[in-house]
Amino acid sequence: MITGLGEMANRYNQKIADATIGRLSRYYRTLKHLESYDIETVSSEELAKRNNVTSAQVRKDFSFFGAFGRRGLGYNVSELRRQIEKILGLDQEWHLALVGVGNIGKALLNFRQFEEHNFKFRLLLDSDPEKIGKRFIGLEVRNLENLNEEVRKGHVDIVVIAVPAEAAQKVADDLVKAGVKAILNFAPTSLMVPPDVTVRNQNIVIEIERLSFALTQASGKP
Amino acid sequence: MITGLGEMANRYNQKIADATIGRLSRYYRTLKHLESYDIETVSSEELAKRNNVTSAQVRKDFSFFGAFGRRGLGYNVSELRRQIEKILGLDQEWHLALVGVGNIGKALLNFRQFEEHNFKFRLLLDSDPEKIGKRFIGLEVRNLENLNEEVRKGHVDIVVIAVPAEAAQKVADDLVKAGVKAILNFAPTSLMVPPDVTVRNQNIVIEIERLSFALTQASGKP
Repeated sequence: MITGLGEMANRYNQKIADATIGRLSRYYRTLKHLESYDIETVSSEELAKRNNVTSAQVRKDFSFFGAFGRRGLGYNVSELRRQIEKILGLDQEWHLALVGVGNIGKALLNFRQFEEHNFKFRLLLDSDPEKIGKRFIGLEVRNLENLNEEVRKGHVDIVVIAVPAEAAQKVADDLVKAGVKAILNFAPTSLMVPPDVTVRNQNIVIEIERLSFALTQASGKP
Repeated sequence: MITGLGEMANRYNQKIADATIGRLSRYYRTLKHLESYDIETVSSEELAKRNNVTSAQVRKDFSFFGAFGRRGLGYNVSELRRQIEKILGLDQEWHLALVGVGNIGKALLNFRQFEEHNFKFRLLLDSDPEKIGKRFIGLEVRNLENLNEEVRKGHVDIVVIAVPAEAAQKVADDLVKAGVKAILNFAPTSLMVPPDVTVRNQNIVIEIERLSFALTQASGKP
């Protein structure tokens, strides 16, 4: 039986490793997938296999949150899905803002998985006069100069930064001043923020450069 | 003076931490930026400030590669840029393939920073009959069924996976069989590959779920 998963998560907040959260996201996706096929129960072995981890890891991740499968029966798919949903905060809608309506920014606006997972864009900001006033996904691009006012007015929870590296820290500083506590950063630079603000980086160029580095080293060059 | 940076990098290959490579990518971008303004020398303090690290960290990162700034003069911008370029393998062109010409995939095709950094798409693969034969950035989408042949024919170095989570491992297996050694994975799942294959993950949904988790925990909910 699964009991009080949400409360447990809250209580154990400080101890939840980053890697665990990543795995919960993956289990969640597997559970949604199983649910869509009307599958009612799932074993830790099955969840493990579908996520390239060991079944011991799956049981450890869940037991940490107070969720235990029943021997021979496994986990109830829907119940476990709902509990993880609650832990990850996916049982509510989150308002997103996008700063920087460029290439990557526009792709993210059309990223169906955000919408599907209750992350909804509510505000677009850019500093380019050519872009301000234009509409994407039904939203008018607003002037970055009015960031503070727009972010507060839009009740923004999470901000996606997709501006050039040079402009990113200034945007982050302004977001912090506007009370934003969560940033997804696509600019290829690290950001300095106070400890109560969470930043996750998605540095596509840096990741691909890690690959060219690996290939270069493996080839014995340079 | 900077001496034999490339060779040093090669020799110290095994010891280069993942975080160091990430920082080198960032310094590289700063150096390119300075170069575009015809700035000839840069201090470790300036590089540190622009990358939100300490100057001791900068000096440590470079001395590890055998690069030392000259007291009072700092580092030669162009020379250091060229050396890091060589270490990261950015002094040559890399052929990319994209598997999965969906939303994110199409955005990446138009991601100018790939092109600017010598990463060139040469092959597009998809399993959707509606997409096969269509053209994007001058390339015709090929049938995923012929992955092995197409990857070998296209002399592909790095493959970008942008397929749904359920399909990703099969694609990775086929890529490994085709001799691919570097994968940038946008599918929200981890991939199992042999140790001589490098995978970097860009799980946008998982990253944003880490943010909703952080916000949920901070708010005292659920």
